[in-house]
Amino acid sequence: MIVGLSGGIDSSTVAALSALALGGNKVFALMLPEKETYNTTDLHHAELVAKKCDITPALEAFYHSIPIFDPTEKICKGNVKARTRMIYIYYYANKLNRIVCGSSDKSETMMGYFTKWGDVASDIMPIMDLYKTQVKELAEHIGVPKESIAKPPTPALWPGQTAEGELGLKYEALDLILYGLEHFMKEAEIAEQLNIEEKAVHKVKQRWLDAEHKRRMLLAAKLEYRTVGTDFRLRRG
Amino acid sequence: MIVGLSGGIDSSTVAALSALALGGNKVFALMLPEKETYNTTDLHHAELVAKKCDITPALEAFYHSIPIFDPTEKICKGNVKARTRMIYIYYYANKLNRIVCGSSDKSETMMGYFTKWGDVASDIMPIMDLYKTQVKELAEHIGVPKESIAKPPTPALWPGQTAEGELGLKYEALDLILYGLEHFMKEAEIAEQLNIEEKAVHKVKQRWLDAEHKRRMLLAAKLEYRTVGTDFRLRRG
Repeated sequence: MIVGLSGGIDSSTVAALSALALGGNKVFALMLPEKETYNTTDLHHAELVAKKCDITPALEAFYHSIPIFDPTEKICKGNVKARTRMIYIYYYANKLNRIVCGSSDKSETMMGYFTKWGDVASDIMPIMDLYKTQVKELAEHIGVPKESIAKPPTPALWPGQTAEGELGLKYEALDLILYGLEHFMKEAEIAEQLNIEEKAVHKVKQRWLDAEHKRRMLLAAKLEYRTVGTDFRLRRG
Repeated sequence: MIVGLSGGIDSSTVAALSALALGGNKVFALMLPEKETYNTTDLHHAELVAKKCDITPALEAFYHSIPIFDPTEKICKGNVKARTRMIYIYYYANKLNRIVCGSSDKSETMMGYFTKWGDVASDIMPIMDLYKTQVKELAEHIGVPKESIAKPPTPALWPGQTAEGELGLKYEALDLILYGLEHFMKEAEIAEQLNIEEKAVHKVKQRWLDAEHKRRMLLAAKLEYRTVGTDFRLRRG
């Protein structure tokens, strides 16, 4: 099993769960820092248990070879980082004949707060059905270091980025809204019970629905054979 | 719309279809050659219609920064190439606010003959429901250049690689086997009608089933909330 480790709560929890389930010697944790969001504290915590590799040279090779590359466009650039990490993680998995264990949680999955074919790209997802607030409880329960739990969650795609800042809500509120939506409650009903504006609930719902393409298999046109003309010769018995 | 263009039949057909459907000025075709499989003929055909970008420096940055990198392991290395192309294609799509049109056909999709999160990573797939032999007919019908149609299909992950060589069968035979399997015919029945060994049919069936994980959404554990303990406060109406 390979786990990409950021030093944050989700990947720390998944690494700990994997080690509990399989034994630590079967879990290969990979730390993939890069210059812009390099954080010595994270590295210090992580390097005790993980192999690490600076991905900055690969990122710079991309930046320099894309004629329309725009360093001010944080999201496009951030997606390159998340996808580059996927390439490293899958190289190790391929070469060492292991599977890739992802660390996406339910809150970010529902909000589409991830990079398509990037951080979400993995083979199994043990905590994808847990809201971030539930991951926190689980992390405390299995003894993930307090520092990882207390740290504001971030995809670390640019300096100062935080998930709650970008999503515009604290996870405590967001998770309750998502729980209500997942259980087919009306927007007004959720807003009333949480004592928040209906507009805030509506915004979350819209973002959830708009991100559907990131959670599905890609769209493939289903075609009618007769329109193509191949004679397939085989006769069904 | 962005299409990655290799000069081969699938991507040429998809680029032509896209241009027919949307108008050529709405289709951005991207050629992503690299040193090892660089083919001047391909480039010559493609560069007339496409922007191009050498991806070798990005690949070398990966190779040099992976301590366990093994240049003799073709598949692991080839997967890096396919995924690196995905990063470029999605950067253009992100930045130019377009969607990515994939070129996978049904034969390679059923055989799992593609890189997970690599060449198959796209937003829509117009020819995924056509076997390679059907793509060939379609390509002829819409006037794709003969050179692209006649060339042996290859993912171009290493020099000399051909799809039929790796799959061990000509597409004419493979597609008939896949058609039979897709229509729930028994292995023996397919073998008899095609006058081939049952073992060959069995091998294709096994490969088709083994590749299922590459065609599905990743596996996420479904969890029972009560075991986690969060009190979600919301009361369903």
